[in-house]
Amino acid sequence: MAIRSGRWRGPSGGKVPECVVCNLVVLPKSLAYDFLLYCVRNPKACPILEVTDPGNPEPARIAPGADLRTDLARYAVYRDGAREADLTDIRSLWRDDSVAFLLGSSLTFDHALERAGVTPSKEVWVLNTKIPTAPAGVFHGPLVVTMRWMTAAQAVIASQLTGRFAANHGAPIHLGDPSEIGADLESPIFGEPVRSIPRGVMPVFWACGVTPQRAAIEAKIPLMIAHAPGHGFISDLKADRICIP
Amino acid sequence: MAIRSGRWRGPSGGKVPECVVCNLVVLPKSLAYDFLLYCVRNPKACPILEVTDPGNPEPARIAPGADLRTDLARYAVYRDGAREADLTDIRSLWRDDSVAFLLGSSLTFDHALERAGVTPSKEVWVLNTKIPTAPAGVFHGPLVVTMRWMTAAQAVIASQLTGRFAANHGAPIHLGDPSEIGADLESPIFGEPVRSIPRGVMPVFWACGVTPQRAAIEAKIPLMIAHAPGHGFISDLKADRICIP
Repeated sequence: MAIRSGRWRGPSGGKVPECVVCNLVVLPKSLAYDFLLYCVRNPKACPILEVTDPGNPEPARIAPGADLRTDLARYAVYRDGAREADLTDIRSLWRDDSVAFLLGSSLTFDHALERAGVTPSKEVWVLNTKIPTAPAGVFHGPLVVTMRWMTAAQAVIASQLTGRFAANHGAPIHLGDPSEIGADLESPIFGEPVRSIPRGVMPVFWACGVTPQRAAIEAKIPLMIAHAPGHGFISDLKADRICIP
Repeated sequence: MAIRSGRWRGPSGGKVPECVVCNLVVLPKSLAYDFLLYCVRNPKACPILEVTDPGNPEPARIAPGADLRTDLARYAVYRDGAREADLTDIRSLWRDDSVAFLLGSSLTFDHALERAGVTPSKEVWVLNTKIPTAPAGVFHGPLVVTMRWMTAAQAVIASQLTGRFAANHGAPIHLGDPSEIGADLESPIFGEPVRSIPRGVMPVFWACGVTPQRAAIEAKIPLMIAHAPGHGFISDLKADRICIP
């Protein structure tokens, strides 16, 4: 309600730490099968938490009463694969055949890492890799990852702990040398360029929710709406409830 | 190859215990979105392991070189929701727009239970319940479950162990009193009627791969092909490889 009324326009990370934060992708129904299959084929990058019925902006399963057209603080809008100015309300772009996909986000496990005493780098980098995703229909492209660094002992704990959050990208896809996955630390998608990894810590890489945006952009579809990075949808779903025991 | 050449026409359980056995559903592309979404919304009953591209009968991700038109020992064929005579080859029914879905099967975790010293009832019953599945498009219907019984101590081990096989129906959906989920023991879909549960054992219920067949039957679609019960597709995927560590 704070977001819907405009009282909160900032990032969603840490605002409601016990609830699952979601990445959003809105596409026309005609592209929904290809995109759903892309998510199914790439479950670490695109863990599906809800798919709305065409034209219905209410994610009734994980946030009854919410409206995905107004309840995110900032939306990214892509036309023909190019990003336009962000919006704070997408009612004017919503159509009778719009389908919204809500995907798990690693913002959810950051809180769990904190509770487990894992203290990664303050910054979270978003990086391109050279790992191809499994294509589906028009959607394809490289895996995008997040990078945090921590001690090796913490990397072991983080691997076990995030492995239980299968709906939020799950276990890391890589530990250690960034060049093994073609991660380009000097030109991150998000975050400051990294010249060198500090001594005593190990970079840990997770599949990232920007991957489906990247694939949708590569497909140059006429209109795709997504959450603006950092500004996810806060669901009613308890993070610990969907953690695998 | 033994199945393709006709040398093996029997059930698939236990034949290649280290590999994942799959339930099969073949539908026309026009119904593929609804069915894929039905699977996504009901992941315990319909864990998706592969979706083939329209017209291509090769499950290239989990069994390269296989042909889903010839490599199952027996196929069930449904027209307008009614089951016809089983086939041992579906090449004559395969179309340019046929999409095959391979879903995890509990035959995979039976072997893991055995290795863990869990000795359930020799028989596995398939039962209707009164638990509704989450509908998607034309697909809807009650959850179908498998029932095994075992000691309470074994039920705890089985709950933990099968919870790790998320792609093969995962943890039980219920333990104990069958009436709580509306499971009808006197008229099973598969197995002998059960008059009473023996003393000292507890019934344990898992979501079952017959659920999507039931939903597809309820949708009365013109043509659906599935595996005949017990005669799943044996993939190359190692069961322990997709088990969550």
